[in-house]
Amino acid sequence: MTATYTPTQRARIKRARQRAHYDHETVHAILDAGLIAHVGYVIDGQPFVTATCHWRRDDVIYWHGSAASRMLRAIGGGVPVCVTVTHFDGIVLARSGFHSSINYRSVTAFGRARKVEDRAEKLAALEALVERITPGRWPELRPPNAKEIKATTVVAMPIEEAAAKVRSWTPADDAADYALPLWAGVLPVRAQLGAPEPDPRLDPGTPAPDYLGRVTVA
Amino acid sequence: MTATYTPTQRARIKRARQRAHYDHETVHAILDAGLIAHVGYVIDGQPFVTATCHWRRDDVIYWHGSAASRMLRAIGGGVPVCVTVTHFDGIVLARSGFHSSINYRSVTAFGRARKVEDRAEKLAALEALVERITPGRWPELRPPNAKEIKATTVVAMPIEEAAAKVRSWTPADDAADYALPLWAGVLPVRAQLGAPEPDPRLDPGTPAPDYLGRVTVA
Repeated sequence: MTATYTPTQRARIKRARQRAHYDHETVHAILDAGLIAHVGYVIDGQPFVTATCHWRRDDVIYWHGSAASRMLRAIGGGVPVCVTVTHFDGIVLARSGFHSSINYRSVTAFGRARKVEDRAEKLAALEALVERITPGRWPELRPPNAKEIKATTVVAMPIEEAAAKVRSWTPADDAADYALPLWAGVLPVRAQLGAPEPDPRLDPGTPAPDYLGRVTVA
Repeated sequence: MTATYTPTQRARIKRARQRAHYDHETVHAILDAGLIAHVGYVIDGQPFVTATCHWRRDDVIYWHGSAASRMLRAIGGGVPVCVTVTHFDGIVLARSGFHSSINYRSVTAFGRARKVEDRAEKLAALEALVERITPGRWPELRPPNAKEIKATTVVAMPIEEAAAKVRSWTPADDAADYALPLWAGVLPVRAQLGAPEPDPRLDPGTPAPDYLGRVTVA
């Protein structure tokens, strides 16, 4: 049986239900495909949305930052948080403005974040971050020193509930509009990596590591 | 004199101030470069973050959706909203995990959204959306009909305050780490358009319009 998140009112997708998915496989694949999440939180009734690098292990989403970060101080105490990861996959040009749309994959996950205080757990989380971005790089880096570990806050948010929303198809026009002499279709969009740009201070003899070829961004 | 947003406590960037910008030119350029915004809002103390297409005119950010949208119903009444637009520009591989980073351009804007009720204003806003995405397409589309206009909610959020945060440079390592024999540099990331994919139902004789070459996504 496929594992799924069970949405309450909060996460359930009400409109365009053909776009909704709650199974772990779809939700996790969308979370894992990207590096950037938008984290929503509330301070004194005011919503804030902060973009940050995220990573996942099982049903837990992690992110990190400076120990002085307003976002991390605000949410580390276990207040409700919303984490949204969105991939913009294309522009859908229908034969009307009304049916024109966007192709995308998006996950909205809800939960409460806790600060990772245990040193071993924190190091394991930072290793997972580095390995998510550059698989194989962690062993070649010097270990973080005590000052760096102290200056870094890592938070973990067990997913209480989550929903994925996906649109990945061609235009869906009104029947009468198919007769219009308009171009219709999809302009695909992708996040792409360019050629690595070595640090100007890099010794030119330093070889480019294999893991540069294993980086994926969407 | 350069026009700037004046940040209060809410929008002021406290850390990494060399990344902070408040001038209209920088803020607007980052908003305008992308199509996708993440909108944060609060319902009963719970934060929600929803990705949506946005566009801008002067100091006002617009977005739209179904009249039945939970997000638009929740925010159309003038509650506090946070709109964040983020462009992921690169992965910064420093000589330590601690100094590794992300290059990005991000704007966080705060305000309250109102529903655009006036018919002429609503049509002008929808035209601006179509023209933002596909410059020159609006005149070739049939006008929206009454049912479509009714089924669409457009909201406008005058920017009360906003801050841009930009990191766009090479690794900044600890002095001692420059001696490490590690590759360091930037892996640039860009959102790119692929070749247009015509709708399978398109008459093959339909020419690809010029505006397909004027679409920009980041």
